[in-house]
Amino acid sequence: MNSSKGGDAVSKAHAIGPVPDGPAAVSAGWVAASSMRIDADRMLQRIDALAAINRQADGSCCRLALTDADRQARDLMVGWMRAAGLEVHVDRIGNIFGVTPGGEGQAPVMTGSHIDTVATGGRYDGVLGVVAGLEALQTILEQGVAPARPLALAVFTNEEGVRFQPDMMGSLVYAGALDLAAALAARAEDGAVLGEELQRIGYAGHEAGAPRPHAYVELHIEQGPILDRAGEVLGAVVDLQGISWQEVTFRGASNHAGTTPMALRRDAGACASEIATFVRDLALRMGGSQVATVGRIHFFPNLINVIPREAKLTIDLRNTDERLLQAAEAEVAEQLQAIAAREGVTVEARSLVRTPPVRFDETVVQVVEAVCAELGHPPRRMTSGAGHDAQMIAPIAPTAMIFVPSVNGVSHNPREATDPQHLELGANALLHTLLRLAS
Amino acid sequence: MNSSKGGDAVSKAHAIGPVPDGPAAVSAGWVAASSMRIDADRMLQRIDALAAINRQADGSCCRLALTDADRQARDLMVGWMRAAGLEVHVDRIGNIFGVTPGGEGQAPVMTGSHIDTVATGGRYDGVLGVVAGLEALQTILEQGVAPARPLALAVFTNEEGVRFQPDMMGSLVYAGALDLAAALAARAEDGAVLGEELQRIGYAGHEAGAPRPHAYVELHIEQGPILDRAGEVLGAVVDLQGISWQEVTFRGASNHAGTTPMALRRDAGACASEIATFVRDLALRMGGSQVATVGRIHFFPNLINVIPREAKLTIDLRNTDERLLQAAEAEVAEQLQAIAAREGVTVEARSLVRTPPVRFDETVVQVVEAVCAELGHPPRRMTSGAGHDAQMIAPIAPTAMIFVPSVNGVSHNPREATDPQHLELGANALLHTLLRLAS
Repeated sequence: MNSSKGGDAVSKAHAIGPVPDGPAAVSAGWVAASSMRIDADRMLQRIDALAAINRQADGSCCRLALTDADRQARDLMVGWMRAAGLEVHVDRIGNIFGVTPGGEGQAPVMTGSHIDTVATGGRYDGVLGVVAGLEALQTILEQGVAPARPLALAVFTNEEGVRFQPDMMGSLVYAGALDLAAALAARAEDGAVLGEELQRIGYAGHEAGAPRPHAYVELHIEQGPILDRAGEVLGAVVDLQGISWQEVTFRGASNHAGTTPMALRRDAGACASEIATFVRDLALRMGGSQVATVGRIHFFPNLINVIPREAKLTIDLRNTDERLLQAAEAEVAEQLQAIAAREGVTVEARSLVRTPPVRFDETVVQVVEAVCAELGHPPRRMTSGAGHDAQMIAPIAPTAMIFVPSVNGVSHNPREATDPQHLELGANALLHTLLRLAS
Repeated sequence: MNSSKGGDAVSKAHAIGPVPDGPAAVSAGWVAASSMRIDADRMLQRIDALAAINRQADGSCCRLALTDADRQARDLMVGWMRAAGLEVHVDRIGNIFGVTPGGEGQAPVMTGSHIDTVATGGRYDGVLGVVAGLEALQTILEQGVAPARPLALAVFTNEEGVRFQPDMMGSLVYAGALDLAAALAARAEDGAVLGEELQRIGYAGHEAGAPRPHAYVELHIEQGPILDRAGEVLGAVVDLQGISWQEVTFRGASNHAGTTPMALRRDAGACASEIATFVRDLALRMGGSQVATVGRIHFFPNLINVIPREAKLTIDLRNTDERLLQAAEAEVAEQLQAIAAREGVTVEARSLVRTPPVRFDETVVQVVEAVCAELGHPPRRMTSGAGHDAQMIAPIAPTAMIFVPSVNGVSHNPREATDPQHLELGANALLHTLLRLAS
């Protein structure tokens, strides 16, 4: 990286919000920091240590939110944060914040992610962002660099939403988009109440939370195949798909598969299959960023020779364009009615999740792009297909994300993998993005 | 019924096989018997008594083959058969035969059915044929009528095939189409071995079985909606659909529903939905007796936001015409390959059941038609969509069936229902059909 480029990128970073000390922030410390690198061995060891907690027979990670395994991971993180010299705060939803000392009263530049996993999770989902964020802050402190703004690392509670709903709960509450009391009252299928579980594992904090960040950037594995397929190693995430999840239930009549003429059937299963084929064709026809998935299906009674009386299926629609997503939803709704009417069955569609698309802050994206280019790997501008804590922060602060590849696009799976060199590269991209945003 | 008509029908009955005493069988006894009727109250009480065994909370009958509940039902039947004056024999597969005394050495005219049920069975499936058959034989004995041939009632082992496969096992072994040793070695999912279960419940007989019947006729509820919809009360079953059951497994790749572009998917679930829609459209396009059902489906891992890596479904195809059934199977096989190739997944199709269509004996069908007409209810000539013991007997003796309506076509369900007047009518049709065939 040459200094003129560095200066240029710093100016851009300043555009994201009022910065009291203006362009003069191109300090001697910043220039000296341009060759700074995180400690890759330490970072990989920390990833290993987190992956070892409650490791399953198939190698998968199982740290459902607010279980004992989650507590062990939190305890490790807090220990590392304190040892690195960060001040640790826990808010009332259990989010952990590690903040660089000094700079009181100033909005921090924040990074973060989560350490809870799905039941058969991989090693990197969430963990990379947290451990790389810690690595970035620790490196900055160790090098004695003092950016103009404090830096903060957030470990958000219950991003996955497996045990308690909704997902991305900690970042939602932090950003003021979900009521704290409602979140604390969330009840798991195992009967546990979230607030009580926070108390039990010792992470029911008393602080209102960190202040609103000056900017937020999150490093994450892609969890999809695009970078890996393209042979690219860094992504600058510009937007995030809107998500529409619904559960559809058709109710018809069970009858004998041999004795019931086709014309006299009210086959709930046939309706489910037909709409599943329709939504797939719809996504192919719409093209662009539209995707559609039927991941879950149940027939009742689910016997080979009985016409299903009831069929339930889920429909997952995603698009980066809210109008197109709404158009897709409308087409599905119309087709559901048409199929049900033709078959003489009833249909009920229940919305499970609905989030609008999120557009990240162009200025932060450009900082990410500049930093990655200077590290020798101009990033791919891309969309996130998965949900992330960053989308919850985006409404309250300029936000973007950095992606590194997922081998074969695999995630939520013990085969989740990323080349260690790409992990290191992502962490260094995060380090320098944070430095510029904070300078 | 007038006597000339009666004489005509008896002549037809004689055509089904060599009858030593020829048309002279229009005996005084037969003419006197023309107004004979079964005891409907006694029959309904017996149906009630069988339904009371192991009755479930939802009112359904659960008498899986060779369980204690099956033994209790068998014990009741044997007691009633002996009390009625029948000689009881149990063969080595546990089929129970009750035979009218005398007439040794002559092939009996046989009726029968089964008393095992599915896990959530109704009151009439199988039971009606057995209890009405007993009623017919008991009435004949009580009235002192002595047909030229002996009459036999068969209670066939394990018609439903729920606990032990294959279904219709007792009639298969009796007809020589299934090896006895193989049947005795059948193992249930609960670990039980059929031969040991027969011993345990006291129905491992030592007899080779009843002789090959002179003719066979079985009364059964339709288990479909055709008679009920048409407002007709008796059916003369002329044929039985061929059945093709297969289990299809698509194997693709699990990926994130948000991050995986449509073009990079190998979605096993989408393939399953597409073939399910295809088989339904195929049956509608073929028309005639062709029916097609996808009753069972499973996705793996069956999560809302994960593209299914594997999908299993069953395909049930039936047709009364073997060539058309084969054509349907061929179209499905071709489509399976096309879908799998397009999606880049593998597909495996495993045949579970394959029985050719059965055409019943036209002479026996005509006896049924004549008898029903004389009872004031000319029957509908119809196809059986379900499998029955009668189809296993058809290759070794002239065979047909009598159907009575199922309200709304419901069967294998506690809501299985038939108007008591129709039960009685069916039993009287069976009585007089047996009388004519035996005269």
